[in-house]
Amino acid sequence: MNYTTMSAAELKKELAGLREQYDAYCKKGLSLDLSRGKPGAKQIDLLTDMLTCLKTPEDCRSANGFDNRNYGVLDGIPEAKKLFSDLLDIPVANIIVGGNSSLNLMYDAMARAMLYGVVGSERPWVKEEKVKFICPVPGYDRHFGVCQSLGIEMINVKMTPTGPDMDAVEALAKDPAVKGIWCNPKYSNPDGITYSDETVKRLAAMKTGASDFRIFWDNAYVVHDLYKAEGMDTLYDIFAACREAGNEDRVFYFASTSKISFPGAGLAMIAASEANIKQIKGIMGSQTIGFDKLNQIRHVRYFKTAENMMAHMKVLADIIRPKFETVDRILNEDLGGTGTATWTSPRGGYFISLYTMNGCAKRAYALCKEAGVTLTTVGATYPYGIDPDDSNIRIAPTYPCDEDLEAAMHVLTLCVKIAAVEKLLA
Amino acid sequence: MNYTTMSAAELKKELAGLREQYDAYCKKGLSLDLSRGKPGAKQIDLLTDMLTCLKTPEDCRSANGFDNRNYGVLDGIPEAKKLFSDLLDIPVANIIVGGNSSLNLMYDAMARAMLYGVVGSERPWVKEEKVKFICPVPGYDRHFGVCQSLGIEMINVKMTPTGPDMDAVEALAKDPAVKGIWCNPKYSNPDGITYSDETVKRLAAMKTGASDFRIFWDNAYVVHDLYKAEGMDTLYDIFAACREAGNEDRVFYFASTSKISFPGAGLAMIAASEANIKQIKGIMGSQTIGFDKLNQIRHVRYFKTAENMMAHMKVLADIIRPKFETVDRILNEDLGGTGTATWTSPRGGYFISLYTMNGCAKRAYALCKEAGVTLTTVGATYPYGIDPDDSNIRIAPTYPCDEDLEAAMHVLTLCVKIAAVEKLLA
Repeated sequence: MNYTTMSAAELKKELAGLREQYDAYCKKGLSLDLSRGKPGAKQIDLLTDMLTCLKTPEDCRSANGFDNRNYGVLDGIPEAKKLFSDLLDIPVANIIVGGNSSLNLMYDAMARAMLYGVVGSERPWVKEEKVKFICPVPGYDRHFGVCQSLGIEMINVKMTPTGPDMDAVEALAKDPAVKGIWCNPKYSNPDGITYSDETVKRLAAMKTGASDFRIFWDNAYVVHDLYKAEGMDTLYDIFAACREAGNEDRVFYFASTSKISFPGAGLAMIAASEANIKQIKGIMGSQTIGFDKLNQIRHVRYFKTAENMMAHMKVLADIIRPKFETVDRILNEDLGGTGTATWTSPRGGYFISLYTMNGCAKRAYALCKEAGVTLTTVGATYPYGIDPDDSNIRIAPTYPCDEDLEAAMHVLTLCVKIAAVEKLLA
Repeated sequence: MNYTTMSAAELKKELAGLREQYDAYCKKGLSLDLSRGKPGAKQIDLLTDMLTCLKTPEDCRSANGFDNRNYGVLDGIPEAKKLFSDLLDIPVANIIVGGNSSLNLMYDAMARAMLYGVVGSERPWVKEEKVKFICPVPGYDRHFGVCQSLGIEMINVKMTPTGPDMDAVEALAKDPAVKGIWCNPKYSNPDGITYSDETVKRLAAMKTGASDFRIFWDNAYVVHDLYKAEGMDTLYDIFAACREAGNEDRVFYFASTSKISFPGAGLAMIAASEANIKQIKGIMGSQTIGFDKLNQIRHVRYFKTAENMMAHMKVLADIIRPKFETVDRILNEDLGGTGTATWTSPRGGYFISLYTMNGCAKRAYALCKEAGVTLTTVGATYPYGIDPDDSNIRIAPTYPCDEDLEAAMHVLTLCVKIAAVEKLLA
């Protein structure tokens, strides 16, 4: 039944039926949440032994003899750097291991750029008349929040199946006031899109009006594949691309173990060129004596090797993959052929994007809320919270248990259909 | 033997004797460190059970049911706030518990002031033509480092036995460009001075040219008393003083467990007025999803109550007090009556200040270094690293074992005497 080809009478009849189903859901007093990209308890329970894997003072010591219980070591202990280095194929010398939050490293990187400038800046960004950032949309609300908080003007660029629309990005980057771009290049939040090799190379090589243009490369889902080998997305090495193009200083690369180990108590890292790392450490040395090294060595003692981390990711994938498949199945079953929505089918990451008919997302959100299903706030996936099409709904399937996920998805598809029919009848 | 009243001939003879002793030390190939306010291994070993006190997923849960392994809770878990609240007698509502570093909270507070302004600011501080900060000297090098990094001009004010010279502070604070003052009000770094009630009240009540003047109240040694009850310094409640004066928003209060639990993996906090906390949380929400809550609940499970923390501090005091007494004894034995130096005898904290004759500190430092004894860089206790008198040497007695401390102190006093004699002969 394609709603877009139905007559008004047919639509009205359909709406009555949908309404009846909806009322039945409302009476159930549901309280379900599809809004947050939070790992579920099943995932986190796997890590219980990590809580106690540091037992003795000796366990807290680095191979170089340093006592990680005490002060010192600004940029991360050697073993933690090595773990990230092996996992991400980035040289140890280009890595700083921080605290528990990669968002914090990103915010701080942006705040530093504002207060001090970056390598290649003529002046601190706050001294510029205007600072603009390119924001592929839809994207991660917290990225946009950093810019908004710091008064950086955001410019939307549409995501395509190969990453941000590079023609638009290249055109915008010519403006010297455009100082950078947010990228979540693998299994992007919320679409689950992985940038093509060409996209990565064009980002690395493009001419920029600003000599201090920065790609904020938030590789949050770098090892968060849901399928093995042949089903896995691959991402071209941004550092290699930048080196090839002679733009080594262009990238700030971020990653974390927040969705590998404990979401609230993982390790975050920033990687960058030698010159960038030197500048960052110089300023970071005024900010802190060092991050929590016990948590760093805790991760090292627990995982031991990057291979073990990858093996752990396979176990997590086996928990998450069925949830993604449930979402995809219900979207197909409930919305397939209705013409009311499209959606993405990511092979990894934490999110699925659902696109309603234009002008229907907010209404679907409100209907869901009334029925006890919380969605990511509509608009949150766009700068300033404004989805110009009122269409994108981010689905986060990892946190609810399987049963709750099924129920929530049925409510969601129902609400999308109701919103669509209402729109078609309006 | 008072060196200052000796004849040149007597001094020369004395110098020969001192040199002989010095050469003997140099031959020993010592490698001793009095430079860093780091807790010693004996102190930290007491905390070994803390490493494993979180054992099960249930241990990680707050009383309100929140799973602290997962994302969320921007401003600290309720139990950790309560612990600090009870320890410091500050209402829970005025506390944010952060990560492992109070320096990081201080830097971030200053960076926020620069980028956004504070409650009462007309504009972000970066938009001011000039921002100045009052720096009681000698003081903590890391405080001065924050200002220097952010381009804030520092103005020295002399410490007195009752805290900073308040006449000078009040005069300087009239300048609208003076936006604040650094204070380390109890057992100050490096003098070990505790501000008098009058000093605290005057700081809270003084007229300031800037409507957004801030006291950065780094109460690093708030419960770091070395003597019991009657021997303990007491500090007037800065919040009470500010309330009484109608200047509630004037204080940013910082503390941490860095010298209570693990120095590199403790908990830091900031406390402030309701309006300040609201502004801070508003901005912090763009910076992070939350600090490491597992480490917060780890502290709660281990210490349980503020009383237990205070009991732990008594145990630590029993380890540290003899070191302070060793320093004081050797200073008295070796330098008493020589007229070459004065020093403080703090009742708590982590440091002792030694004042050489003017123009002798750098020379003493160099002599110590050559003999294998590392001191805090002379000048580090002053803004821009410049001690105008070239006199202050910060002694940090906690890290070396007792034997090393004795040896290092004898080298230090010897070098102070040599430097003094050289000076008197020059």
